[in-house]
Amino acid sequence: MGWIIAEVTVVPLGTASPSLSKYVAEVERVLRSFGLKTTLTPMSTIIEGEWDDVFRAIKAMHEKPFEMGALRVSTRITVDERRDKRLHMEEKVKTVEEKI
Amino acid sequence: MGWIIAEVTVVPLGTASPSLSKYVAEVERVLRSFGLKTTLTPMSTIIEGEWDDVFRAIKAMHEKPFEMGALRVSTRITVDERRDKRLHMEEKVKTVEEKI
Amino acid sequence: MGWIIAEVTVVPLGTASPSLSKYVAEVERVLRSFGLKTTLTPMSTIIEGEWDDVFRAIKAMHEKPFEMGALRVSTRITVDERRDKRLHMEEKVKTVEEKI
Amino acid sequence: MGWIIAEVTVVPLGTASPSLSKYVAEVERVLRSFGLKTTLTPMSTIIEGEWDDVFRAIKAMHEKPFEMGALRVSTRITVDERRDKRLHMEEKVKTVEEKI
Repeated sequence: MGWIIAEVTVVPLGTASPSLSKYVAEVERVLRSFGLKTTLTPMSTIIEGEWDDVFRAIKAMHEKPFEMGALRVSTRITVDERRDKRLHMEEKVKTVEEKI
Repeated sequence: MGWIIAEVTVVPLGTASPSLSKYVAEVERVLRSFGLKTTLTPMSTIIEGEWDDVFRAIKAMHEKPFEMGALRVSTRITVDERRDKRLHMEEKVKTVEEKI
Repeated sequence: MGWIIAEVTVVPLGTASPSLSKYVAEVERVLRSFGLKTTLTPMSTIIEGEWDDVFRAIKAMHEKPFEMGALRVSTRITVDERRDKRLHMEEKVKTVEEKI
Repeated sequence: MGWIIAEVTVVPLGTASPSLSKYVAEVERVLRSFGLKTTLTPMSTIIEGEWDDVFRAIKAMHEKPFEMGALRVSTRITVDERRDKRLHMEEKVKTVEEKI
């Protein structure tokens, strides 16, 4: 119960440069310190775990750009949870690839 | 610190009918029991408050369709937080309307 | 066929200031020039119409911050389409409110 | 000009089963017929190309579940475009990984 896959993007707004990789790298480092299963994609980070564990990590990720000087942060989260069977991120891709 | 505006959409998947208003109404009722400032739009609900209070409500909203029998729930959240001045939902719209 | 409700947020990245209302107002002005049914919310703009008409407007909205000097733009879109009955934005809210 | 990276998720609503992989596989197959650069992630598909080419593909993807019998489809799109330098999906991940 409460096992979710969450896709997260944390974006600082009003930073002077259009490059955000410095922020994304630090946010990702924060996430990895939580020891959850994660995958970095070109548009987001995907996290798998219990709701409370995942959202504890997301709160720390959202906080990071402020610590780095940002004045505004936009964080986008999509949660996918299934109760009839536990979702795992590799299986979601594998199941689709097999059907294509 | 931690004062956010969050936009939330909770969608049950694999329900038999394309109409979701029964679920949306119950999710909205759960949200309103938390006493936070909220606005219902045609595509989402917008909530304003401290991070922990808002996410306590979102967790309960995400749980509701499962209690109603759904086996899978997709929840989409966008958080906007500004630290140089506190954001309020009516002001965001008013500021834009004045500049148009 | 093809009648959609779309929720859109256009955000310039790497602008010097955390305030984005100047951009949001211009993007909204572009949208309104298309004559579609729209509603401005604290987190997005909601547009109703045929797919091609709505996406013609969204393309122009996404272009606007670049014309204003932004070097990077992030545009978020959620499309809701129902084929058993045509969705209208006011009705979606009304139906939910009646059930609460 | 107009070179974008778009993240897309197409979800049929009101299907009888919580498993959506049958739909996701067909939507992915439609996308691949367009010959654009794409990556499948556990939560979405990422597409790279010119705005018009990418949105022609997205429109066909959104249409597919209706052809398969769905009565309602929710499609979520996030567009990232940078004009000072062209974004490529592998580089976005590589740049972040190098900085971690």
